[in-house]
Amino acid sequence: MPVSDLERDTCSIARTVALLGDRWMLVIIRQAFAGIRRFEQLQSTLGISSALLSDRLARLVAAGVLDKHPYVDARRTRHEYRLTDRGMQLYPVLQALRVWGDEHLAPDGPFMLYTHRGCGGVAQVELTCGDCGDALTARDILPLPGPGMPPGGPIALSGTRS
Amino acid sequence: MPVSDLERDTCSIARTVALLGDRWMLVIIRQAFAGIRRFEQLQSTLGISSALLSDRLARLVAAGVLDKHPYVDARRTRHEYRLTDRGMQLYPVLQALRVWGDEHLAPDGPFMLYTHRGCGGVAQVELTCGDCGDALTARDILPLPGPGMPPGGPIALSGTRS
Repeated sequence: MPVSDLERDTCSIARTVALLGDRWMLVIIRQAFAGIRRFEQLQSTLGISSALLSDRLARLVAAGVLDKHPYVDARRTRHEYRLTDRGMQLYPVLQALRVWGDEHLAPDGPFMLYTHRGCGGVAQVELTCGDCGDALTARDILPLPGPGMPPGGPIALSGTRS
Repeated sequence: MPVSDLERDTCSIARTVALLGDRWMLVIIRQAFAGIRRFEQLQSTLGISSALLSDRLARLVAAGVLDKHPYVDARRTRHEYRLTDRGMQLYPVLQALRVWGDEHLAPDGPFMLYTHRGCGGVAQVELTCGDCGDALTARDILPLPGPGMPPGGPIALSGTRS
């Protein structure tokens, strides 16, 4: 199935995965959050080819996740890539990946602690109910069609209505 | 840079992305949460080749995210793939992707509402402080080295200490 089918899937998980489900996209966004925003910095810290990096940056700019800004360095105009508001809103995705990795892929404990500047506590990701505030797991969730669902029901990943 | 470098990166985001940063891994996990766990069901709903699906399922089993269970159908033994506890803990990652997609990739509103079976409220993902409980954004976070960080400091993605 081509990526374009996933992009049209009637599921916000599938659409987001179609956009970001590539190891480079997410680590480039991680670098942007860490203040590593210039093409040369990204290339040297990621060990990625110039062509691959250009491609992924162009996709992230087209998706409105990063904005391209010129700056002058040694009299040459270069570019840096800053997170837009839309990009900033991806922080919970990175933190949810981090929480899982800390638990399952970091046998000696977390590499980094993401602490609250206010009180020094460690950040956590919680799935909660927007009404009653209860902490939720997958077992507590009942998926129901939302306002964006087409009248004929969901269009499955394979392109047929399920 | 080969994937194996990302897997060894001293960052739980990079390690998790190395494992799951592929569009198929995350949609297969999504299907498992939706109760679509049999090879044939996965193949028909995802429109994925048998070879690609086998490869991704084997990787998810090796990573301890899915467990392979035999079942008998028309006198033939087949297999289904169930989420392990470790796999169940990926639910906040999917929900964080869903929240962002609902906001930015679903112009007519959410396709699905993930409601709380208890009270009917809609599930939300929150980044909060584990100590004081404040809601946090990226701007509120100060990253500090954790117990799993090697003494010489972080090993950058390019394999050199940064």
